[in-house]
Amino acid sequence: MAYKHILVAVDLSPESDILVEKAVSMARPYNAQISLIHVGINYSDLYTGLVDINMNDMKDRITEDAHIILNKLASNAGYPITHTLSGSGEFGQVLIEAIREFGADLVVCGHHQDFWSKLMSSARQLINNTHVDTLIVPLKDEVITEEKAVEVN
Amino acid sequence: MAYKHILVAVDLSPESDILVEKAVSMARPYNAQISLIHVGINYSDLYTGLVDINMNDMKDRITEDAHIILNKLASNAGYPITHTLSGSGEFGQVLIEAIREFGADLVVCGHHQDFWSKLMSSARQLINNTHVDTLIVPLKDEVITEEKAVEVN
Repeated sequence: MAYKHILVAVDLSPESDILVEKAVSMARPYNAQISLIHVGINYSDLYTGLVDINMNDMKDRITEDAHIILNKLASNAGYPITHTLSGSGEFGQVLIEAIREFGADLVVCGHHQDFWSKLMSSARQLINNTHVDTLIVPLKDEVITEEKAVEVN
Repeated sequence: MAYKHILVAVDLSPESDILVEKAVSMARPYNAQISLIHVGINYSDLYTGLVDINMNDMKDRITEDAHIILNKLASNAGYPITHTLSGSGEFGQVLIEAIREFGADLVVCGHHQDFWSKLMSSARQLINNTHVDTLIVPLKDEVITEEKAVEVN
Protein backbone atom coordinates (compact mmCIF):
# COMPACT_ATOMS: atom_id res chain seq x y z
CA MET A 1 0.00 0.00 0.00
CA ALA A 2 3.01 2.32 0.11
CA TYR A 3 3.43 4.83 -2.69
CA LYS A 4 5.75 3.89 -5.55
CA HIS A 5 6.16 7.17 -7.42
CA ILE A 6 5.54 10.50 -5.71
CA LEU A 7 5.16 13.57 -7.91
CA VAL A 8 5.86 16.82 -6.06
CA ALA A 9 4.29 19.89 -7.68
CA VAL A 10 6.48 22.83 -6.65
CA ASP A 11 5.92 26.54 -7.22
CA LEU A 12 9.62 27.37 -6.61
CA SER A 13 8.86 29.45 -3.51
CA PRO A 14 11.21 28.92 -0.53
CA GLU A 15 8.58 26.56 0.95
CA SER A 16 9.06 24.12 -1.93
CA ASP A 17 11.78 22.49 0.21
CA ILE A 18 9.11 21.48 2.73
CA LEU A 19 7.13 19.60 0.08
CA VAL A 20 10.24 17.78 -1.12
CA GLU A 21 11.24 16.84 2.44
CA LYS A 22 7.79 15.42 3.13
CA ALA A 23 7.90 13.39 -0.08
CA VAL A 24 11.37 12.08 0.82
CA SER A 25 10.17 10.96 4.27
CA MET A 26 7.41 8.95 2.60
CA ALA A 27 9.55 7.56 -0.23
CA ARG A 28 12.72 6.58 1.65
CA PRO A 29 11.44 3.59 3.68
CA TYR A 30 10.06 1.98 0.50
CA ASN A 31 12.66 3.14 -2.05
CA ALA A 32 9.88 4.90 -3.92
CA GLN A 33 10.62 7.21 -6.81
CA ILE A 34 10.25 10.97 -6.47
CA SER A 35 9.82 13.38 -9.36
CA LEU A 36 9.49 17.15 -9.24
CA ILE A 37 7.26 19.18 -11.53
CA HIS A 38 6.88 22.90 -11.97
CA VAL A 39 4.07 24.26 -14.08
CA GLY A 40 4.84 27.76 -15.30
CA ILE A 41 2.09 30.33 -15.31
CA ASN A 42 0.73 31.62 -18.56
CA TYR A 43 2.57 34.96 -18.74
CA SER A 44 0.28 36.50 -21.31
CA ASP A 45 -2.48 36.45 -18.65
CA LEU A 46 -0.41 38.77 -16.46
CA TYR A 47 -0.30 41.68 -18.89
CA THR A 48 -3.48 43.51 -19.59
CA GLY A 49 -2.07 46.50 -21.43
CA LEU A 50 0.88 47.56 -23.49
CA VAL A 51 4.15 46.85 -21.76
CA ASP A 52 7.64 48.07 -22.45
CA ILE A 53 9.30 44.67 -22.40
CA ASN A 54 9.80 41.89 -24.83
CA MET A 55 7.48 39.19 -23.54
CA ASN A 56 9.40 36.33 -25.09
CA ASP A 57 12.69 37.47 -23.57
CA MET A 58 10.99 37.77 -20.20
CA LYS A 59 9.43 34.33 -20.56
CA ASP A 60 12.78 32.79 -21.43
CA ARG A 61 14.47 34.45 -18.46
CA ILE A 62 11.77 33.31 -16.03
CA THR A 63 11.87 29.78 -17.45
CA GLU A 64 15.65 29.71 -17.10
CA ASP A 65 15.43 30.91 -13.48
CA ALA A 66 12.79 28.24 -12.82
CA HIS A 67 15.09 25.54 -14.19
CA ILE A 68 17.93 26.68 -11.92
CA ILE A 69 15.72 26.62 -8.81
CA LEU A 70 14.20 23.27 -9.84
CA ASN A 71 17.63 21.68 -10.28
CA LYS A 72 18.77 23.11 -6.94
CA LEU A 73 15.69 21.63 -5.23
CA ALA A 74 16.50 18.26 -6.80
CA SER A 75 20.16 18.30 -5.80
CA ASN A 76 19.35 19.40 -2.22
CA ALA A 77 16.71 16.69 -1.73
CA GLY A 78 19.15 14.21 -0.18
CA TYR A 79 17.39 11.54 -2.20
CA PRO A 80 17.55 10.60 -5.88
CA ILE A 81 15.04 12.54 -7.97
CA THR A 82 13.86 10.43 -10.90
CA HIS A 83 12.48 13.18 -13.14
CA THR A 84 12.72 16.95 -12.88
CA LEU A 85 9.91 18.27 -15.05
CA SER A 86 9.03 21.74 -16.18
CA GLY A 87 5.84 22.44 -18.05
CA SER A 88 3.63 25.33 -18.92
CA GLY A 89 -0.07 25.62 -19.54
CA GLU A 90 -3.13 24.79 -17.50
CA PHE A 91 -1.91 23.49 -14.14
CA GLY A 92 -4.32 20.56 -13.77
CA GLN A 93 -3.92 19.38 -17.35
CA VAL A 94 -0.11 19.45 -17.26
CA LEU A 95 -0.16 17.53 -13.97
CA ILE A 96 -2.55 14.90 -15.33
CA GLU A 97 -0.30 14.31 -18.33
CA ALA A 98 2.76 13.92 -16.10
CA ILE A 99 0.93 11.57 -13.72
CA ARG A 100 -0.08 9.33 -16.62
CA GLU A 101 3.29 9.43 -18.36
CA PHE A 102 5.32 8.62 -15.27
CA GLY A 103 2.76 6.51 -13.40
CA ALA A 104 2.70 8.62 -10.24
CA ASP A 105 0.43 7.31 -7.49
CA LEU A 106 0.65 10.33 -5.17
CA VAL A 107 0.77 14.04 -5.96
CA VAL A 108 2.08 16.37 -3.25
CA CYS A 109 1.15 20.00 -3.64
CA GLY A 110 1.35 23.10 -1.50
CA HIS A 111 -1.52 25.33 -0.59
CA HIS A 112 -0.21 28.54 -2.11
CA GLN A 113 0.98 26.97 -5.32
CA ASP A 114 -2.01 28.65 -6.76
CA PHE A 115 -5.14 30.30 -5.45
CA TRP A 116 -7.38 28.04 -3.43
CA SER A 117 -10.16 27.76 -6.00
CA LYS A 118 -7.72 26.88 -8.75
CA LEU A 119 -6.00 24.33 -6.51
CA MET A 120 -9.34 22.78 -5.62
CA SER A 121 -10.44 22.66 -9.22
CA SER A 122 -7.09 21.06 -10.08
CA ALA A 123 -7.44 18.54 -7.26
CA ARG A 124 -10.91 17.64 -8.49
CA GLN A 125 -9.66 17.25 -12.05
CA LEU A 126 -6.77 15.11 -10.79
CA ILE A 127 -8.94 12.80 -8.73
CA ASN A 128 -11.59 12.38 -11.40
CA ASN A 129 -9.19 11.95 -14.29
CA THR A 130 -6.32 10.00 -12.80
CA HIS A 131 -7.69 8.50 -9.56
CA VAL A 132 -4.44 9.64 -7.97
CA ASP A 133 -4.06 10.37 -4.27
CA THR A 134 -3.43 14.02 -3.46
CA LEU A 135 -1.57 15.35 -0.42
CA ILE A 136 -2.25 19.04 0.22
CA VAL A 137 0.30 20.81 2.42
CA PRO A 138 -0.65 24.24 3.74
CA LEU A 139 2.32 26.58 3.36
CA LYS A 140 2.97 29.23 5.96
CA ASP A 141 2.81 32.56 4.20
CA GLU A 142 -0.60 31.77 2.70
CA VAL A 143 -2.04 30.91 6.08
CA ILE A 144 -0.52 34.00 7.70
CA THR A 145 -2.07 36.18 5.00
CA GLU A 146 -5.49 34.71 5.71
CA GLU A 147 -5.05 35.19 9.45
CA LYS A 148 -4.09 38.81 8.89
CA ALA A 149 -7.19 39.32 6.77
CA VAL A 150 -9.30 38.09 9.66
CA GLU A 151 -7.59 40.47 12.11
CA VAL A 152 -8.17 43.50 9.92
CA ASN A 153 -11.89 42.79 9.52
CA MET B 1 9.61 15.72 8.38
CA ALA B 2 7.76 12.42 8.77
CA TYR B 3 4.26 12.50 10.23
CA LYS B 4 3.91 11.77 13.95
CA HIS B 5 0.16 11.31 14.37
CA ILE B 6 -2.04 10.37 11.44
CA LEU B 7 -5.79 10.79 11.84
CA VAL B 8 -7.79 8.64 9.43
CA ALA B 9 -11.34 9.89 8.81
CA VAL B 10 -13.38 6.83 7.87
CA ASP B 11 -16.96 6.60 6.64
CA LEU B 12 -17.22 2.88 7.53
CA SER B 13 -17.69 1.83 3.89
CA PRO B 14 -15.73 -1.27 2.79
CA GLU B 15 -13.10 1.08 1.31
CA SER B 16 -12.22 2.38 4.78
CA ASP B 17 -9.67 -0.46 4.94
CA ILE B 18 -7.75 1.19 2.09
CA LEU B 19 -7.38 4.44 4.03
CA VAL B 20 -6.17 2.60 7.12
CA GLU B 21 -3.65 0.56 5.08
CA LYS B 22 -2.25 3.72 3.49
CA ALA B 23 -1.91 5.36 6.89
CA VAL B 24 -0.17 2.28 8.28
CA SER B 25 2.34 2.27 5.40
CA MET B 26 3.23 5.88 6.24
CA ALA B 27 3.27 5.43 10.02
CA ARG B 28 5.15 2.13 10.37
CA PRO B 29 8.68 3.23 9.30
CA TYR B 30 8.60 6.09 11.84
CA ASN B 31 6.54 4.48 14.62
CA ALA B 32 3.97 7.23 14.16
CA GLN B 33 0.64 7.11 15.92
CA ILE B 34 -2.57 6.38 14.02
CA SER B 35 -6.04 7.27 15.21
CA LEU B 36 -9.37 6.58 13.50
CA ILE B 37 -12.31 8.94 13.53
CA HIS B 38 -15.84 8.51 12.28
CA VAL B 39 -18.16 11.48 12.15
CA GLY B 40 -21.79 10.40 12.13
CA ILE B 41 -24.23 12.20 9.90
CA ASN B 42 -26.89 14.37 11.39
CA TYR B 43 -29.87 12.00 11.16
CA SER B 44 -32.50 14.67 11.58
CA ASP B 45 -31.43 16.06 8.16
CA LEU B 46 -32.43 12.80 6.51
CA TYR B 47 -36.11 12.94 7.42
CA THR B 48 -38.21 15.59 5.80
CA GLY B 49 -41.62 14.34 6.82
CA LEU B 50 -43.33 12.31 9.46
CA VAL B 51 -41.77 8.89 9.86
CA ASP B 52 -43.01 5.78 11.56
CA ILE B 53 -39.88 5.09 13.58
CA ASN B 54 -38.43 6.27 16.80
CA MET B 55 -35.55 8.49 15.71
CA ASN B 56 -33.58 8.07 18.92
CA ASP B 57 -33.76 4.28 18.76
CA MET B 58 -32.61 4.39 15.15
CA LYS B 59 -29.76 6.77 16.03
CA ASP B 60 -28.61 4.51 18.84
CA ARG B 61 -28.67 1.44 16.59
CA ILE B 62 -26.69 3.17 13.83
CA THR B 63 -24.19 4.52 16.35
CA GLU B 64 -23.78 1.04 17.83
CA ASP B 65 -23.23 -0.47 14.36
CA ALA B 66 -20.68 2.27 13.63
CA HIS B 67 -18.78 1.44 16.83
CA ILE B 68 -18.62 -2.24 15.88
CA ILE B 69 -17.26 -1.47 12.39
CA LEU B 70 -14.83 1.10 13.80
CA ASN B 71 -13.45 -1.37 16.33
CA LYS B 72 -13.13 -4.03 13.64
CA LEU B 73 -11.19 -1.60 11.42
CA ALA B 74 -8.88 -0.86 14.36
CA SER B 75 -8.28 -4.51 15.22
CA ASN B 76 -7.65 -5.45 11.56
CA ALA B 77 -5.16 -2.62 11.00
CA GLY B 78 -2.13 -4.76 11.83
CA TYR B 79 -0.76 -1.75 13.67
CA PRO B 80 -1.59 -0.23 17.05
CA ILE B 81 -4.40 2.31 16.82
CA THR B 82 -3.92 5.03 19.43
CA HIS B 83 -7.46 6.44 19.53
CA THR B 84 -10.68 5.19 17.98
CA LEU B 85 -12.98 8.18 17.92
CA SER B 86 -16.63 8.52 17.08
CA GLY B 87 -18.27 11.92 16.84
CA SER B 88 -21.34 13.49 15.40
CA GLY B 89 -22.06 16.94 14.07
CA GLU B 90 -20.55 19.08 11.37
CA PHE B 91 -17.79 17.00 9.75
CA GLY B 92 -15.14 19.74 9.47
CA GLN B 93 -15.72 21.06 12.97
CA VAL B 94 -15.55 17.62 14.62
CA LEU B 95 -12.34 16.86 12.71
CA ILE B 96 -10.75 20.19 13.72
CA GLU B 97 -11.48 19.50 17.38
CA ALA B 98 -9.98 16.02 17.15
CA ILE B 99 -6.87 17.29 15.32
CA ARG B 100 -6.27 19.88 18.04
CA GLU B 101 -6.99 17.55 20.94
CA PHE B 102 -4.75 14.75 19.71
CA GLY B 103 -2.15 16.83 17.86
CA ALA B 104 -2.58 15.12 14.49
CA ASP B 105 -0.29 16.40 11.75
CA LEU B 106 -1.90 14.54 8.83
CA VAL B 107 -5.54 13.82 8.07
CA VAL B 108 -6.30 11.02 5.61
CA CYS B 109 -9.75 11.09 4.09
CA GLY B 110 -11.51 9.31 1.27
CA HIS B 111 -13.21 10.96 -1.63
CA HIS B 112 -16.69 9.57 -1.06
CA GLN B 113 -16.72 10.18 2.64
CA ASP B 114 -18.98 12.99 1.78
CA PHE B 115 -20.01 14.85 -1.34
CA TRP B 116 -17.19 16.60 -3.12
CA SER B 117 -18.21 20.14 -2.22
CA LYS B 118 -18.59 19.25 1.42
CA LEU B 119 -15.24 17.48 1.43
CA MET B 120 -13.60 20.47 -0.20
CA SER B 121 -15.19 22.88 2.20
CA SER B 122 -14.02 20.64 5.06
CA ALA B 123 -10.51 20.47 3.62
CA ARG B 124 -10.44 24.25 3.36
CA GLN B 125 -11.67 24.63 6.93
CA LEU B 126 -9.06 22.12 8.09
CA ILE B 127 -6.17 23.82 6.35
CA ASN B 128 -7.15 27.31 7.43
CA ASN B 129 -7.97 26.40 10.99
CA THR B 130 -5.43 23.77 11.89
CA HIS B 131 -2.69 24.10 9.24
CA VAL B 132 -2.82 20.32 9.00
CA ASP B 133 -1.76 18.37 5.93
CA THR B 134 -4.60 16.57 4.16
CA LEU B 135 -4.30 13.42 2.07
CA ILE B 136 -7.30 12.85 -0.19
CA VAL B 137 -7.74 9.29 -1.46
CA PRO B 138 -10.23 8.78 -4.28
CA LEU B 139 -12.35 5.72 -3.52
CA LYS B 140 -13.51 3.48 -6.32
CA ASP B 141 -17.28 3.53 -6.26
CA GLU B 142 -17.41 7.34 -6.32
CA VAL B 143 -15.17 7.51 -9.36
CA ILE B 144 -17.13 4.78 -11.17
CA THR B 145 -20.36 6.69 -10.57
CA GLU B 146 -18.86 9.81 -12.14
CA GLU B 147 -17.57 7.82 -15.11
CA LYS B 148 -21.02 6.34 -15.62
CA ALA B 149 -22.51 9.82 -15.57
CA VAL B 150 -20.16 10.83 -18.37
CA GLU B 151 -21.07 7.78 -20.46
CA VAL B 152 -24.78 8.45 -20.20
CA ASN B 153 -24.43 12.06 -21.32
